Amino acid sequence: MNPLVGIIMGSQSDLNVMSAAAEHLEQLGVPFEVTVVSAHRTPERMFDYAQNAKARGLKVIIAGAGGAAHLPGMVASLTTLPVIGVPVKSSNSIDGWDSVLSILQMPSGVPVATVALNGAANAGILAAQMVGAFDEQIANNLAAFKAKLKEKVEKSVQDLDTRGYRAVLKG
Amino acid sequence: MNPLVGIIMGSQSDLNVMSAAAEHLEQLGVPFEVTVVSAHRTPERMFDYAQNAKARGLKVIIAGAGGAAHLPGMVASLTTLPVIGVPVKSSNSIDGWDSVLSILQMPSGVPVATVALNGAANAGILAAQMVGAFDEQIANNLAAFKAKLKEKVEKSVQDLDTRGYRAVLKG
Amino acid sequence: MNPLVGIIMGSQSDLNVMSAAAEHLEQLGVPFEVTVVSAHRTPERMFDYAQNAKARGLKVIIAGAGGAAHLPGMVASLTTLPVIGVPVKSSNSIDGWDSVLSILQMPSGVPVATVALNGAANAGILAAQMVGAFDEQIANNLAAFKAKLKEKVEKSVQDLDTRGYRAVLKG
Amino acid sequence: MNPLVGIIMGSQSDLNVMSAAAEHLEQLGVPFEVTVVSAHRTPERMFDYAQNAKARGLKVIIAGAGGAAHLPGMVASLTTLPVIGVPVKSSNSIDGWDSVLSILQMPSGVPVATVALNGAANAGILAAQMVGAFDEQIANNLAAFKAKLKEKVEKSVQDLDTRGYRAVLKG
Amino acid sequence: MNPLVGIIMGSQSDLNVMSAAAEHLEQLGVPFEVTVVSAHRTPERMFDYAQNAKARGLKVIIAGAGGAAHLPGMVASLTTLPVIGVPVKSSNSIDGWDSVLSILQMPSGVPVATVALNGAANAGILAAQMVGAFDEQIANNLAAFKAKLKEKVEKSVQDLDTRGYRAVLKG
Amino acid sequence: MNPLVGIIMGSQSDLNVMSAAAEHLEQLGVPFEVTVVSAHRTPERMFDYAQNAKARGLKVIIAGAGGAAHLPGMVASLTTLPVIGVPVKSSNSIDGWDSVLSILQMPSGVPVATVALNGAANAGILAAQMVGAFDEQIANNLAAFKAKLKEKVEKSVQDLDTRGYRAVLKG
Amino acid sequence: MNPLVGIIMGSQSDLNVMSAAAEHLEQLGVPFEVTVVSAHRTPERMFDYAQNAKARGLKVIIAGAGGAAHLPGMVASLTTLPVIGVPVKSSNSIDGWDSVLSILQMPSGVPVATVALNGAANAGILAAQMVGAFDEQIANNLAAFKAKLKEKVEKSVQDLDTRGYRAVLKG
Amino acid sequence: MNPLVGIIMGSQSDLNVMSAAAEHLEQLGVPFEVTVVSAHRTPERMFDYAQNAKARGLKVIIAGAGGAAHLPGMVASLTTLPVIGVPVKSSNSIDGWDSVLSILQMPSGVPVATVALNGAANAGILAAQMVGAFDEQIANNLAAFKAKLKEKVEKSVQDLDTRGYRAVLKG
Repeated sequence: MNPLVGIIMGSQSDLNVMSAAAEHLEQLGVPFEVTVVSAHRTPERMFDYAQNAKARGLKVIIAGAGGAAHLPGMVASLTTLPVIGVPVKSSNSIDGWDSVLSILQMPSGVPVATVALNGAANAGILAAQMVGAFDEQIANNLAAFKAKLKEKVEKSVQDLDTRGYRAVLKG
Repeated sequence: MNPLVGIIMGSQSDLNVMSAAAEHLEQLGVPFEVTVVSAHRTPERMFDYAQNAKARGLKVIIAGAGGAAHLPGMVASLTTLPVIGVPVKSSNSIDGWDSVLSILQMPSGVPVATVALNGAANAGILAAQMVGAFDEQIANNLAAFKAKLKEKVEKSVQDLDTRGYRAVLKG
Repeated sequence: MNPLVGIIMGSQSDLNVMSAAAEHLEQLGVPFEVTVVSAHRTPERMFDYAQNAKARGLKVIIAGAGGAAHLPGMVASLTTLPVIGVPVKSSNSIDGWDSVLSILQMPSGVPVATVALNGAANAGILAAQMVGAFDEQIANNLAAFKAKLKEKVEKSVQDLDTRGYRAVLKG
Repeated sequence: MNPLVGIIMGSQSDLNVMSAAAEHLEQLGVPFEVTVVSAHRTPERMFDYAQNAKARGLKVIIAGAGGAAHLPGMVASLTTLPVIGVPVKSSNSIDGWDSVLSILQMPSGVPVATVALNGAANAGILAAQMVGAFDEQIANNLAAFKAKLKEKVEKSVQDLDTRGYRAVLKG
Repeated sequence: MNPLVGIIMGSQSDLNVMSAAAEHLEQLGVPFEVTVVSAHRTPERMFDYAQNAKARGLKVIIAGAGGAAHLPGMVASLTTLPVIGVPVKSSNSIDGWDSVLSILQMPSGVPVATVALNGAANAGILAAQMVGAFDEQIANNLAAFKAKLKEKVEKSVQDLDTRGYRAVLKG
Repeated sequence: MNPLVGIIMGSQSDLNVMSAAAEHLEQLGVPFEVTVVSAHRTPERMFDYAQNAKARGLKVIIAGAGGAAHLPGMVASLTTLPVIGVPVKSSNSIDGWDSVLSILQMPSGVPVATVALNGAANAGILAAQMVGAFDEQIANNLAAFKAKLKEKVEKSVQDLDTRGYRAVLKG
Repeated sequence: MNPLVGIIMGSQSDLNVMSAAAEHLEQLGVPFEVTVVSAHRTPERMFDYAQNAKARGLKVIIAGAGGAAHLPGMVASLTTLPVIGVPVKSSNSIDGWDSVLSILQMPSGVPVATVALNGAANAGILAAQMVGAFDEQIANNLAAFKAKLKEKVEKSVQDLDTRGYRAVLKG
Repeated sequence: MNPLVGIIMGSQSDLNVMSAAAEHLEQLGVPFEVTVVSAHRTPERMFDYAQNAKARGLKVIIAGAGGAAHLPGMVASLTTLPVIGVPVKSSNSIDGWDSVLSILQMPSGVPVATVALNGAANAGILAAQMVGAFDEQIANNLAAFKAKLKEKVEKSVQDLDTRGYRAVLKG
């Protein structure tokens, strides 16, 4: 099935963070693709990827990068598709502030939908929400996903009620 | 025409920032609505707004708030629609960090698509991009909008080439 | 005995931090309850908990959460009881700033009594102080608690005087 | 009527911020007193004030200070009453971070209930909530106060509905 | 004379900061050019500019931008020339941290020589130093420039010695 | 009378901040001198000043500088006298953090006694305290100075007691 | 021999940081004492210690504390002796910013000579410098200490010259 | 062959970070030297090194230091050669902010070309770019280096395409 969401990242080393986006899209029934596109090492490839994304049928692009993270914003400058940016906390990062601000603080005219530091899971869910706004099946999957989150809390509540906080704390 | 985008804000005082979202949606041909919904002063209204948004035909919600900004995240917890958060720099804000982090750093499971501090214009454009991914007319409007941004730069280039930087600096 | 203090947290994973509130309330003789209430995953439960707290006899609510921590502020919006907020330093937190600012920087009209990052012990003591202002037995317990803190310092003083800093340093 | 809340501040120059605490206590029907107590310039006076507060019938102390703000924490060390700290953004402050962190990050054993930067209004409300938990009249006043906050939002909603956002923006 | 230094900026509104680079290059006798190149609004133009810079005889590129400032880093990815980045403090910037970190924290392999916030004068001097390392005339100009800086201090010293600090303070 | 304290600053433009050090030393009866010494523009002069200070009879050096403030630390490396550093908040400073951290975070072996941002008054008082520890007259002057600070607070207290906070607020 | 420097700390757990002050004073030949004084747990003891310090013959007080670190500033308010503050990075600290700002940002009138985060070694050296300004023997010890620092660098230089950086890197 | 680039660092303990500069210069065919020069412990040596660098044939100086990092800026004040500053994240650093700001925020007139925190590899590459702007052989080496970076990304792309993200994630 044709991918609706493109997941790209600046380096293969970002995959251990970014795979959560893929896993959540899979769980929510949204077809996707995963690849590496580096703004700074393969700028021509970034141009091609961004400029062809819409024609290839993608509806959303998820882009993750660390440090001075230019990939999400540059891709956003080259397409009319919504771009979700995932700030990745890389080694030598200044506590993650660098990737957060490099992705979030885009100038007027070129937005990037930024999620939390290392928030690739939320990037996947957000992409599914964008698709789900126009696709009732995906919307239902999202509702079911939300229900599961609630159930997990309710189980904790029961556990605490039954066993008491000291017992739960011990595991 | 039925609104596709709901623009909400925590207080009427946010309107001078948030109006840029409305103006850009207007310019891009996306029908929208504007209202005030306060997470902390009208929590029941927030519940109703968020839980009925999808059934009312909205495709995206834009929520702006300042300080400990809970509106975007709480709305996101109550709908499967994508929610765009606009951190507003309010008076007594600690340099805007409070609203940025309160909106951006959502826990896994409940994303908010965060834009730059006071980035309401980009919130409007991003909402249009989400709609435009599924509506060719809006996509064309976005392409035209991007072309205008480029033209403005090209005009600056010519101006600098013709008159020199000192003359341009004088205005 | 009917609980006077409700300790709630956004996720069971916060329990290893939040249990210190329970332990201090126990030590100070203030009856309490412990449960999980998630603002983002169980918003209806949060509404119910906050709106019924006063009628159920609670005098204070302690709410702990991490990241974009909306639980303390949202609960405060739904009750006239004082709410103590505990910023929890979660994984992927930006050094704890996110939870601190999301809890502290509440808008005018809806206060949250914020304690230090991971300061659940102090949340318990603060709740006891609020009760102790109207209950002489609890006030006496607090005075005894303060006396013990002082004794511990005095013991260190003696130890340093007797053995010298090098010996104390060795343990 | 005997004051239940003591409002103190490190310097008379803090009064233009701290007066909001007094005004809200007045509005909520809680008797209070206002004075200046400087941790660094009148340490003995601070000792006396804090150590006698409970015996004088106070139930809560609100302490505001800027920069390296030691007043709230030192008062908290000298009483078993709950102490609310108001970080004041003074001139030469480093963006308010100094007073926020000096008040918030108290060591285990000596809590300060910290409110937002310059959040004296919320300090007054929070003090009223502490009293209101044990005084039904004050609790009713707080409920009425909350209702008024809600009404103000609802009026904004109607205004936006009736006149449209552009007209409201113009004032 | 053929320009050796290219000064580019993301927007004409950066010119009032960036003109200091031009003025210092002029003063130091280094030929230069000034133009606008926007990473986000004219990405193709940025590609052309960066990829042709070396063949056109440029030895250094100075690139200034604000917010999520991608221009310096993207240009650096497209040329082997040294690129000097000037973080510009734009309106809605988060205190300048966004542009500083977006320019400074480049990944390994693609350096940007970053100067201080709004440090365009230093960017011009640094570019002259890079040229001056291989051009004795420019090196002499730099030595003379340094001598003037020293003279200005020595004049202050004399002024303070002669008139006293109170008189100097009055102007 | 021979100066005991040398007040130096990186630029004459720092004088409007640094003059407070001189005024307090004058008030406390400690002889001093004031001059400009720039680490970056007159490094040789800085060497001479620092290396001769002790032989010239100085007991303390107060050094103020802004931005990447190297003057206090470099002077400290060149003398065995105690050096007090005053971080000056210059234009284009990143909120003063740059000068604070450049002065405070000295490596082990070369301390600088750092005071608050723009805290030149405190630098003067601190220098007087260092002298006063070995000079009873200066110690008495310091005690009198402290007494005056206390009196000013006591006057505020009386004013608030007599006129009430509303009247005092009006001025 | 009578101690000239008093080293105090808020908690015995600070000793592993603060012992470096003692060790350096020992090395530099300055007699000192070490004890625990807690601003928040033993406020009366703090008063006594600070108010008697001068009469007991102390010339400098070194005070170390973490988090909302009030000890150095409160001691400074109670004596005319110079007080050196050591910000200690405690667990649950927000990256050390809390103790740094609580100690550094003292209000006008009450200075604390602040050293780097965990900079107890420098606190010891600084105290010795204050004494050494009035005691030639200590001044000579400080000069010898500086010479040793230089020798260590010169040894590194020789090592790198002789063996090359790769060999040195291997150890 | 005569070194063109001088790599200096404040302490031998910086070598494990700074060696990456040497390795990249070696790889790019630029002759260099490595030594230790401490601004605070060997200020005279720093003067000599900086003032003789140009006459000795150096074209660029790379200076790395941590904490209150004065070495790069002081060297820049003493030469007309371009100086590249490497902020080193030392122990007891406040998250690296101290060295970054001490190096970056140089006053007008004395630039330092700052690279990322611990970015010694980029310092080496940047130095090669400065030389390569005037030396075609080095420029070719840089182009080849860039090509290798691209190849590595392309290999990741193929790997992901062939094996899928789950397999790649497993290693």
